[in-house]
Amino acid sequence: MSKTIHFTKMHGAGNDYIYVNTLLYSIPDPSAASIAWSKPHTGIGSDGLVLIGKPKDEEKADYAMRIFNADGSEAMMCGNASRCIAKYLYEKGITDKTTIRLETLSGVKILSLHLKAGKVESVTVDMLEPAFDVKEQFTGHTPDELNSVKALSDHVLRTEDGKPKSLFVSMGNPHYVIFVDDVQHMDITTLGKLLEREKAFPQRCNIEFAQLVGEGKLRTRVWERGSGITMACGTGACATAVAAAKLGVCGRHAVIAMDGGDLDITWSPNDNHVYMTGPAAFAFEGDIELPEDK
Amino acid sequence: MSKTIHFTKMHGAGNDYIYVNTLLYSIPDPSAASIAWSKPHTGIGSDGLVLIGKPKDEEKADYAMRIFNADGSEAMMCGNASRCIAKYLYEKGITDKTTIRLETLSGVKILSLHLKAGKVESVTVDMLEPAFDVKEQFTGHTPDELNSVKALSDHVLRTEDGKPKSLFVSMGNPHYVIFVDDVQHMDITTLGKLLEREKAFPQRCNIEFAQLVGEGKLRTRVWERGSGITMACGTGACATAVAAAKLGVCGRHAVIAMDGGDLDITWSPNDNHVYMTGPAAFAFEGDIELPEDK
Repeated sequence: MSKTIHFTKMHGAGNDYIYVNTLLYSIPDPSAASIAWSKPHTGIGSDGLVLIGKPKDEEKADYAMRIFNADGSEAMMCGNASRCIAKYLYEKGITDKTTIRLETLSGVKILSLHLKAGKVESVTVDMLEPAFDVKEQFTGHTPDELNSVKALSDHVLRTEDGKPKSLFVSMGNPHYVIFVDDVQHMDITTLGKLLEREKAFPQRCNIEFAQLVGEGKLRTRVWERGSGITMACGTGACATAVAAAKLGVCGRHAVIAMDGGDLDITWSPNDNHVYMTGPAAFAFEGDIELPEDK
Repeated sequence: MSKTIHFTKMHGAGNDYIYVNTLLYSIPDPSAASIAWSKPHTGIGSDGLVLIGKPKDEEKADYAMRIFNADGSEAMMCGNASRCIAKYLYEKGITDKTTIRLETLSGVKILSLHLKAGKVESVTVDMLEPAFDVKEQFTGHTPDELNSVKALSDHVLRTEDGKPKSLFVSMGNPHYVIFVDDVQHMDITTLGKLLEREKAFPQRCNIEFAQLVGEGKLRTRVWERGSGITMACGTGACATAVAAAKLGVCGRHAVIAMDGGDLDITWSPNDNHVYMTGPAAFAFEGDIELPEDK
């Protein structure tokens, strides 16, 4: 017995997922579906599968998301995907709210929709507070051992005492942000592989290379632990803006220009939360059969 | 003004295209649509766009195909795509014919549909006659200069006089088929790059590396000129089977096992035509907007 599932393909800053409304279509094995459908030639092709449904706690949240990677593993949360969900819910007429509380595996996220002519032009996600002194993520704030990574000597900006201009920032997950003078001509793959597994990072680390290219604008390239170079990383953009503010590279508002597009980050002085604003777009609508049971 | 186009995503032996019925939906600029829609993250993701429509000459053909590569260029013909068209036309109820004459840029192709329980299980395409002595494609049949390609010495089978066991075959486009003893452990990329541009091939050449792995079964890997290693190549499978028959590696019928799947090739002793039989499959149905004019 086959069953046809309606899906929507969307993307936000280079992250593309398959979105299914589980209020209308149930997916018995989302992990298997994500693996089959994420394949480019025989499936749909995507970074994974996002299920939109009812929250467990209807007092605290309006909707819930579950997100599965292309390898079938379940992810905690994705800023780019949550912006797409906001656009999906509003433009398909499922909600008329412009502030949506979204339940994720890493807590309830608040999404603020920015409208233009009845369409969702961009969405702001409250990414909560950054942290700097997280023992299980970082062994210390000034790991001199990073200085010994020889490749870092090129293009990396230095502080007055000769150390790399850089900062550890946790946005729930660990980031090491390095400020450089020419991010386009750096060998991110070699550096990322080396730094990801440095002794300073017991849980491994995401690495951001950021170059100031205009007032409040940082061209940033990302190395994600386990994934390598990616088009964009929401928490990485937040970490970069926070590090830039902390080190006086720019103020508390920055545009982070990544390979997949621009993300606008504000680190609020009022509540200490980091707010990420960015795009979300529809690619196409589709219908596909559930994968056969193995 | 935007216009929604219904499309079908299909694949055959590793080739995946977007199929549009132009009797129902017109695409003003198929080259631009193929470029936009073939992109994996923001479009649909594919090897290109196939338009199904009316033939120019309704006496000689039933339907016509036009095929656009992902870079927007128009291709002459694709055996894998023409099998998918046969399945599309029959299973969507557009035709009840089980022999379809398909107009392509390289002439009318005859498609024979093989049914099972009302579905098209496989399709045979008449690929016409092979040629061996085509001056504009090959400078000669025994180019000793190929012997000087050092990398060829590994794994390549030899004839009694020490030459590589190989043959030039034209299936409209040029192929050089080499028989080897271990195709999995060969460096196809290095060899393909070298051989593609050998002096023997004025128009450059597709290279097939084939290993006999069972009676009438040839595990084959393909280097396509201009594209590199591909999942499968219809004319390459035909050339491989013809070369195998000519050199006595097997009879006039062979299964060519490529990365993207098996193709079944018969070189008919009756009409000297090469008949290629292989699979075709639906991936999903979709709706997408025409790309905006630039």
